[in-house]
Amino acid sequence: MDTDGFRRLWNEVEPVGRADSGGYVRFSWTEPDLVLRRWFLAQAKLRGLRYEEDRNGNLYAWWYAEKEEVVDPDRPRPHGAVLTGSHFDSVPHGGAYDGPLGIVAAFLAVDRLRAAGAHPKRPIGIAAFTEEEGGRFGVPCLGSRLMAGVIDPDRARLLTDPDGVTLAEAMLEAGADPATLGPDPERLEHLAAFVELHIEQGRALDGSESPVAVASAIWPHGRWRVTFTGEADHAGTTRLPDRRDPMLTFAFAVLAARKEARLAGGVATVGRVEVEPNATNAIAATVTAWLDARAPDEAVLGEILSGFESKVTERAGRDGTSVRITAESETPIVEFDASLRDRIAALLGGAPVLPTAAGHDAGVLSAHVPTAMLFVRNPTGVSHAPGESASDEDCAAGVEALAAVLRELAC
Amino acid sequence: MDTDGFRRLWNEVEPVGRADSGGYVRFSWTEPDLVLRRWFLAQAKLRGLRYEEDRNGNLYAWWYAEKEEVVDPDRPRPHGAVLTGSHFDSVPHGGAYDGPLGIVAAFLAVDRLRAAGAHPKRPIGIAAFTEEEGGRFGVPCLGSRLMAGVIDPDRARLLTDPDGVTLAEAMLEAGADPATLGPDPERLEHLAAFVELHIEQGRALDGSESPVAVASAIWPHGRWRVTFTGEADHAGTTRLPDRRDPMLTFAFAVLAARKEARLAGGVATVGRVEVEPNATNAIAATVTAWLDARAPDEAVLGEILSGFESKVTERAGRDGTSVRITAESETPIVEFDASLRDRIAALLGGAPVLPTAAGHDAGVLSAHVPTAMLFVRNPTGVSHAPGESASDEDCAAGVEALAAVLRELAC
Repeated sequence: MDTDGFRRLWNEVEPVGRADSGGYVRFSWTEPDLVLRRWFLAQAKLRGLRYEEDRNGNLYAWWYAEKEEVVDPDRPRPHGAVLTGSHFDSVPHGGAYDGPLGIVAAFLAVDRLRAAGAHPKRPIGIAAFTEEEGGRFGVPCLGSRLMAGVIDPDRARLLTDPDGVTLAEAMLEAGADPATLGPDPERLEHLAAFVELHIEQGRALDGSESPVAVASAIWPHGRWRVTFTGEADHAGTTRLPDRRDPMLTFAFAVLAARKEARLAGGVATVGRVEVEPNATNAIAATVTAWLDARAPDEAVLGEILSGFESKVTERAGRDGTSVRITAESETPIVEFDASLRDRIAALLGGAPVLPTAAGHDAGVLSAHVPTAMLFVRNPTGVSHAPGESASDEDCAAGVEALAAVLRELAC
Repeated sequence: MDTDGFRRLWNEVEPVGRADSGGYVRFSWTEPDLVLRRWFLAQAKLRGLRYEEDRNGNLYAWWYAEKEEVVDPDRPRPHGAVLTGSHFDSVPHGGAYDGPLGIVAAFLAVDRLRAAGAHPKRPIGIAAFTEEEGGRFGVPCLGSRLMAGVIDPDRARLLTDPDGVTLAEAMLEAGADPATLGPDPERLEHLAAFVELHIEQGRALDGSESPVAVASAIWPHGRWRVTFTGEADHAGTTRLPDRRDPMLTFAFAVLAARKEARLAGGVATVGRVEVEPNATNAIAATVTAWLDARAPDEAVLGEILSGFESKVTERAGRDGTSVRITAESETPIVEFDASLRDRIAALLGGAPVLPTAAGHDAGVLSAHVPTAMLFVRNPTGVSHAPGESASDEDCAAGVEALAAVLRELAC
């Protein structure tokens, strides 16, 4: 395996957006993201791949099949293509590999196939999807959701980041055109398969013989914005019985979410909170929290949510506060294409087959295109935090596996 | 009572720093504060009062006693002076009256005395103390604490606002000199009395016959920064038993603080929270919360704190997190000067005498100078929020009462 080759290309991507925390802050349409988008263009040019940006800000580098070298410049979309790739953006202070590994591995897999003299019968594309984490605008897989037409482009343009900047403003600022956002069904129709390589987000492969696994399914999951409203008042002079303190209801809700998830057999997390006015000596007026919940199936997820809602509503009544729960995203279970999954697992010598509780662009695309995912071993199991890890050997093994899959599907 | 006179001057101050919420954002050394500081200078000039800014950024307008009209220009501090006044700064989205009412009332009280032909035997001063709320730099009564030497000026200069701007940087930006910050014992020695007029922060005067009350004491109170540390990880893929989620410990702490305060007979509030990385799909790495607790006496306050600390530490052990509690300010009980209080209550025809759970510059100065406070009726009882209220009639009654007190003490 070409561990040095992996390290050389990885060294170009690894420093971009790294914060003092050791984690990465690579929000979509911010400078680190733009640096990586330019890097993507340069990599495509270096390899003579055709560079393309779609109407939703997603990037492609195309290796055309031999029969299709001459294409209509006005309709450059390849037919029956096999697409791979991932995303550049990160959660705040996320890990190095989540996203970029799948793009770097894709370029290296193309290099491997070319070095081995492979001749694709289908176009092979490398994709970089935008705002996969929802780390800036709150909706994960935004680029693929827009493409698939499962989010209204008007709603998307008005999504705001924590500073109040809309997606439309951010795109304009970065020199992109938000007016073109919207469904792209023709592009999806022209794909024969999508394979996303990704760092594993648990410890399932730690201690296993295989550095690479194949995904079986993505747990159903969702994000709900929960707004607790009370009444701001003085933290010293307001008697306890006169208070309508939303912080109390919120605190109860955090514990209730965990308990409902534990009892039902899923996971639930509150990782993001905003308080108004957020002053030490003032009772809060509102607390806004985001609930992330996931479960092995939709019945269990529904059970967690309904338990949460009824307990929290009851508590709000006692606190004199009100609660509003708004779904920001709800993603049903994704069962990846079974025949593609079995074909890849066999090709990789019986690689382990794993479910995941994390959402991916592959999950969005799987409703339209036969889709698979490869996971590269992460010994710490840490994800969305600086402790995420992978060895160069395992990453190089991921490149080999992806090259084998692309050869199988396209050559 | 001169209700129109109050309204005319109040109209100059009322719009400054008002946000769309209807609340006020008048942080120290920001534009609204600087507008009000310039207004203070203009009001002093208009009345021929001597304007002075002390080494800690507090402002004064002096009406010298007749015998002291000629003063050494290098040592302009008046001897045996009676000081009144309050502060301009607000909590985020606080009320209109908290602070500015005491300054506007002071100028009007001077006008009343002059119109009535009063001749002060002692200098009368009007003060505007800086950063009373701690709304920007976290330490309440910062201007008076610096003057009294109860906070180290090096520590004060390095206090930061939520954007990471230090007090020193903010003062320089506003054209003030942070190098001069520090104790000012001579200034305190030269004061014979301090009387602060303030909007009442509860509903004790609502329905009473008196629009004005006299303070008896300030409850002991403090602010503690509580840092909960866990481990950031993926909100979907990390199994519940593997988590070290500080949000859980924090949520428990919010409820524990309330319960300990209720059992002991004080109040405790968590109104400010900061989460890192604060992402929907990441388990938090750290949650920092600020606990504000107050009680009728120091034993009860200690009981609340020790109960809180032991319960939260125990819970952190179960959550696999750690907790650090750091006092940011601790203020012992303030019993206002009893003879001054009784003299004023009698002068005002038997005005009600009330304790308060809110801190004030008067509390800091009371350790050095005979100090009193007047409270003006607030029918909603709301404080540190836009719902704070006072009628023009009650404010004008406050001006009358303050004028009577200044005449009694200085003329």
